[in-house]
Amino acid sequence: MERIWTDHLTVRHHECGPDAKLKLNSLFDYLQDAAAGHADHLGVGIQFLAEHRMLWVLSRVKLRIARMPAIGERICVTTYPSGPEKIFATRQYAVCDEKGELIIYGTSFWLLLDGAKFRPLKPLQHLGNALPANGDQIRYFSGLDKLEGNPAVSELREYTVSHSMIDVNRHLNNAYYAFFTNDALGMMSGAFRSVSEIQVNFNHSGALGDRIVCRGSLSSGCFYVDGRSPDGSVTFFQASGAVNDL
Amino acid sequence: MERIWTDHLTVRHHECGPDAKLKLNSLFDYLQDAAAGHADHLGVGIQFLAEHRMLWVLSRVKLRIARMPAIGERICVTTYPSGPEKIFATRQYAVCDEKGELIIYGTSFWLLLDGAKFRPLKPLQHLGNALPANGDQIRYFSGLDKLEGNPAVSELREYTVSHSMIDVNRHLNNAYYAFFTNDALGMMSGAFRSVSEIQVNFNHSGALGDRIVCRGSLSSGCFYVDGRSPDGSVTFFQASGAVNDL
Repeated sequence: MERIWTDHLTVRHHECGPDAKLKLNSLFDYLQDAAAGHADHLGVGIQFLAEHRMLWVLSRVKLRIARMPAIGERICVTTYPSGPEKIFATRQYAVCDEKGELIIYGTSFWLLLDGAKFRPLKPLQHLGNALPANGDQIRYFSGLDKLEGNPAVSELREYTVSHSMIDVNRHLNNAYYAFFTNDALGMMSGAFRSVSEIQVNFNHSGALGDRIVCRGSLSSGCFYVDGRSPDGSVTFFQASGAVNDL
Repeated sequence: MERIWTDHLTVRHHECGPDAKLKLNSLFDYLQDAAAGHADHLGVGIQFLAEHRMLWVLSRVKLRIARMPAIGERICVTTYPSGPEKIFATRQYAVCDEKGELIIYGTSFWLLLDGAKFRPLKPLQHLGNALPANGDQIRYFSGLDKLEGNPAVSELREYTVSHSMIDVNRHLNNAYYAFFTNDALGMMSGAFRSVSEIQVNFNHSGALGDRIVCRGSLSSGCFYVDGRSPDGSVTFFQASGAVNDL
């Protein structure tokens, strides 16, 4: 069993925006694919958990992005579990370029849920020692908290979760929250923007037909974006961070 | 120079839908990435053409899909230029599984345009013999014609081209037309559907902010979908084909 997982990838045309660099949602896809691949490898992937009526839910991610890789660039996406924090199982990410330089890194917080009651379970108790603790490895961020709402947000765009957005878990692919955030940054600044740091909190999964109203604010290079149901009763996600200068 | 181009890919989690099979738009991304990679390799890629004020425009694609590959499956995407047909340059595609079995194949028609006047140019005249004719290789489909409109279409959904949908050519990534078509099939049938055959005609590229109203019909397993501007004056794309039984 590999306690540290590495995907070797080449950045493809369709994954890039007009600057020929990896798009934010494609980065989120890379990270989730690596996490899913590793969980499968460790025997605690989607299929195993479904059979045992449990599921992994991504709760929070925080990333620092020194630079996005470009079309054709060969990169390594490394990920490893890094022990519990509060009720979460944590997992680290590192993206290195061909020279071995660390260009993106971050931390994710996951919940292991009871598939019937949707209550959080303690991963160590229910998965035994399937998840290596990797105590000797770097932990990039800790204490990924709830994000404060921002009263200054403007309403930007409404999305409807469509068939093509639904993933193997039968929910909106989480990377769409990065997609919506990138759209919001574009709309608020009137330009294609890239981010240097971002935290996304995944508060509620999107189902087919759900309508998600995105709102945001951008001030002094810092942004806050969220997506809620039209009546405001459900917050699907919140994102905050910093954009690069143009 | 490789006259036939092959990408070796492993189908990733985020590229699949709830049936754990490759999504239609992800297939279109695979094919376009392969074509773009081959064009780059042959010295007639985006960058070369931009410097010479020309551009490749994908006009028509027809595919037959015996089966979509599943998560984790290793596949080969093969593509090659296959000579001119009318004003088009043609390019063939074949997707094989690990056993070498041909699971998807098809043909695409491209236009080489004058970047200033947007007039079609003759590829042979302007690109010399950069494009191998591959006369010894299979041509899957010929005569990809204009698609007849269908008077029986129902209006389904309007999309707005957003920042995250824009590709390296600064246009709506063409694969979104497959994405919209798949959405239309889901809406018309009330289920996730897969297609056995599809032709997409790319009539007009989408720009940031464009609104695209999708309409469609589905009858006896055959579908027609198109996307037009709200006033109906511009048809962005048309798609027709057949769906698999549930």
